[in-house]
Amino acid sequence: MSSDLVYTAGVDIGGTNLRFGIFGAGGKQESDSRILMPKAADVDFIIRNIKKFLYDNKKYNVKTLGIGIAGQIDAESGNIIFSPNLNWRDVPLKKRLEEELGLNNILVANDLTAITYGEWKYGAGKGFNNLICIFVGTGIGSGIIINGSLYTGCFNSAGEIGHTRIVSGGRKCTCGNYGCLEAYAGGHGIASIAIERAYADRTAFQDVINESGGVIESITAKSIAEAYKAGSKEAVRLIEETGKYLSDGVASAVNLLSPCAVILGGGVLDGIPELFNIVKTETLKRALKASSSNLKILRSVLGEDAGIIGAAALASSV
Amino acid sequence: MSSDLVYTAGVDIGGTNLRFGIFGAGGKQESDSRILMPKAADVDFIIRNIKKFLYDNKKYNVKTLGIGIAGQIDAESGNIIFSPNLNWRDVPLKKRLEEELGLNNILVANDLTAITYGEWKYGAGKGFNNLICIFVGTGIGSGIIINGSLYTGCFNSAGEIGHTRIVSGGRKCTCGNYGCLEAYAGGHGIASIAIERAYADRTAFQDVINESGGVIESITAKSIAEAYKAGSKEAVRLIEETGKYLSDGVASAVNLLSPCAVILGGGVLDGIPELFNIVKTETLKRALKASSSNLKILRSVLGEDAGIIGAAALASSV
Repeated sequence: MSSDLVYTAGVDIGGTNLRFGIFGAGGKQESDSRILMPKAADVDFIIRNIKKFLYDNKKYNVKTLGIGIAGQIDAESGNIIFSPNLNWRDVPLKKRLEEELGLNNILVANDLTAITYGEWKYGAGKGFNNLICIFVGTGIGSGIIINGSLYTGCFNSAGEIGHTRIVSGGRKCTCGNYGCLEAYAGGHGIASIAIERAYADRTAFQDVINESGGVIESITAKSIAEAYKAGSKEAVRLIEETGKYLSDGVASAVNLLSPCAVILGGGVLDGIPELFNIVKTETLKRALKASSSNLKILRSVLGEDAGIIGAAALASSV
Repeated sequence: MSSDLVYTAGVDIGGTNLRFGIFGAGGKQESDSRILMPKAADVDFIIRNIKKFLYDNKKYNVKTLGIGIAGQIDAESGNIIFSPNLNWRDVPLKKRLEEELGLNNILVANDLTAITYGEWKYGAGKGFNNLICIFVGTGIGSGIIINGSLYTGCFNSAGEIGHTRIVSGGRKCTCGNYGCLEAYAGGHGIASIAIERAYADRTAFQDVINESGGVIESITAKSIAEAYKAGSKEAVRLIEETGKYLSDGVASAVNLLSPCAVILGGGVLDGIPELFNIVKTETLKRALKASSSNLKILRSVLGEDAGIIGAAALASSV
């Protein structure tokens, strides 16, 4: 390594973790780090930690920085219009970072936009001109490649597959509407359904409750995944339902976009590996033949690093 | 007019009508015609009638022909892979037309692809780089413009918004699956729901039944529209529900694609003009703010001619 080479940093501002990575030529990962996000993390916390990471890795002489963050980003200014996880509104993230880091090559993108770019450039999406990359975590989001480039829509907000209405007039979603895919099949939605069912029938859900420290309100997608692995009947039923709901959303997107490939990833899918096969099988069964006969449904391969890899790759591409 | 000028013919092969048009410079319509489609129309019927139309208009010396037809088209060969309305499978329409008409500049496209191109080039979509054009007739389809060009996907089958799953595990759709938008809000779906309800409560549906010649099985979207106009309570309820279902599908597409504009048209929307406002209001209320705050929701302006205008414009663009 030498300071003559060009290095790019990627930052993934998630709800749980703040991740950093440094990448050299061809996307080679040179360094990475992660810290837990505190509740109510503000922009100063993010800036302070990016500064520290860059200082700790100053030998790489990073000139380009890419940031991925959940929420709506103004593409021109790099302002965060709204980030629901962090409850940020109108935060001039790019401008603040430019001032505080003394860098002028900073790109701020939606996290799924960055992840999709990473999977397309270096991961499961390599070589596909049209694809949708869907990540199922606490919420559900996606990014879209069309005709060989990222598609973010007219208002830089495309890809919100989590808010596909799959049950007209159904469960309330965090977006304020009803019946969204995310309200049924995102980590938060799955846990909410389990909590309701556990209150209604504690005995049937005892295995799930046991995995949640004995407290119904503590049920999470993670404790459901543990109960699923241990063979809990109710957890198995819930995960099979989740797979069908996911396939409703995926099949709808396939019918609308007729992509070459669908890439599936995210914490919920990583935590319950069987879910991928349920979603794949159901989607191929439910989507129109014209769009599904030759469709590839693939697992994300970049895993937890997809966000930093994508943010860095995207920043160095412009 | 002179035979030195370049004229293009557009043909719209619909379930009910076969329409023809001849267009000159700048898309100026010179001649048009329509005939009713017989049941089980075959490719010979289509060819015979296109021949007759071109002969009747031979002074225009048409060299280029565009065809729009519902169904899945192989983009390279112009073969009809499957057209559900006509029950055609593997029909080499382009090849047959080339042979029989002696033309070598023929384009065969999905009807909604042609309509969308027409609305984008000459209609409500002029000037928008990203849009979705949704037509609600017997079925529901759409076409998509992305980054200033038609987007038909990896398998030439994008735009099937009618098969967005809006009620997981809901009503059976003609596609073989359950809960599709089309099964609730397409003309055929609306009529099926009304027929079921009329059998369940004949008295409440008497107004609708009266508009259908007194026969429950004869209820169509058209007779429901008549009853709606006459103030039938059940027809009003059904149309308001239809509007909400449509907005479920439209809002999901808006959240996924973040288009600049949504264009709405088709027989059901033309037959019940109030439906447009219900769909517009509900979509703007239900879609994510990021994608809906500055979204335009517009009526189709080319109406019944959209198919022939689009098919001709598309054929002359390649």
